[in-house]
Amino acid sequence: METIVRKTTCQRSADVVIYRGEARWVEVANDPAAGFAGQAQQILEQIDQTLVAIGSSKDRLLEIVIYVSDLKDVPTLNTLWDAWVDPNHPPTRACVQVGLQNQLLAELIIRAAV
Amino acid sequence: METIVRKTTCQRSADVVIYRGEARWVEVANDPAAGFAGQAQQILEQIDQTLVAIGSSKDRLLEIVIYVSDLKDVPTLNTLWDAWVDPNHPPTRACVQVGLQNQLLAELIIRAAV
Amino acid sequence: METIVRKTTCQRSADVVIYRGEARWVEVANDPAAGFAGQAQQILEQIDQTLVAIGSSKDRLLEIVIYVSDLKDVPTLNTLWDAWVDPNHPPTRACVQVGLQNQLLAELIIRAAV
Repeated sequence: METIVRKTTCQRSADVVIYRGEARWVEVANDPAAGFAGQAQQILEQIDQTLVAIGSSKDRLLEIVIYVSDLKDVPTLNTLWDAWVDPNHPPTRACVQVGLQNQLLAELIIRAAV
Repeated sequence: METIVRKTTCQRSADVVIYRGEARWVEVANDPAAGFAGQAQQILEQIDQTLVAIGSSKDRLLEIVIYVSDLKDVPTLNTLWDAWVDPNHPPTRACVQVGLQNQLLAELIIRAAV
Repeated sequence: METIVRKTTCQRSADVVIYRGEARWVEVANDPAAGFAGQAQQILEQIDQTLVAIGSSKDRLLEIVIYVSDLKDVPTLNTLWDAWVDPNHPPTRACVQVGLQNQLLAELIIRAAV
């Protein structure tokens, strides 16, 4: 039976779960007081940090589902995303508007090969 | 080629699909006439039952995406969740508000190692 | 380390990513000027085409998450879906209402064994 690796800082949910070579995690801005651009930039940087922490890298991203609280922010997201993503190894991407908790303007579900 | 195991009770969708050691399924309350707390409690109990049925267990949950129809119900969800989840082996968790069919107040997508 | 296969036509996201025997991709109608039935039918046909392109088949679908922009379209979706899906090998399915970009009325996230 293959091992499940969990990185956890609270008891409600894991920060990252790795199983059979695939890591999955949820990223929201550490400082949600920022506006959309600030939150999105934080999230992208936090993804970079998590990738390093789990021994993966941007060119091993598999899939990202992007939840935004307002579709009008997607052009801002795309500008930041295009500067961030590895254009030769992009993940699949879905982007939809949902209701988000607290002051969150974006929430991403990420999967990467480890 | 690895086997795909499907547990199905209807022709529209599978109850559970297991592939390469990972089970994934969607859970909604069997009795949607209940209010939010009732639906959420049913769902958590149904997850327990499904975990037993597929030979997995709560400490092997990988990831849960929670859709609620109203974010005001999240505190209620969290109280039930915290009493239910294995605090030493929690899954990753995303929780967002979307529109749900019929009388559903919550719908969960679950992944577990098998 | 297992290979990641990406089918990409743009730099922002991959059309399909295949890793460890599992393909995942996002499908929206190529011609979003169509109404809901037209978009949904296109998406189902596009899934068929993608399955062929990646060497999979309808009976190897694992999971589909369906985002619709209006739950009133679900009966139309179900009629098309039931005529399309392999009733002996259906995937798991979630279906929720979210806000979609541009003129999109449906967006699907698909997973299939390869």
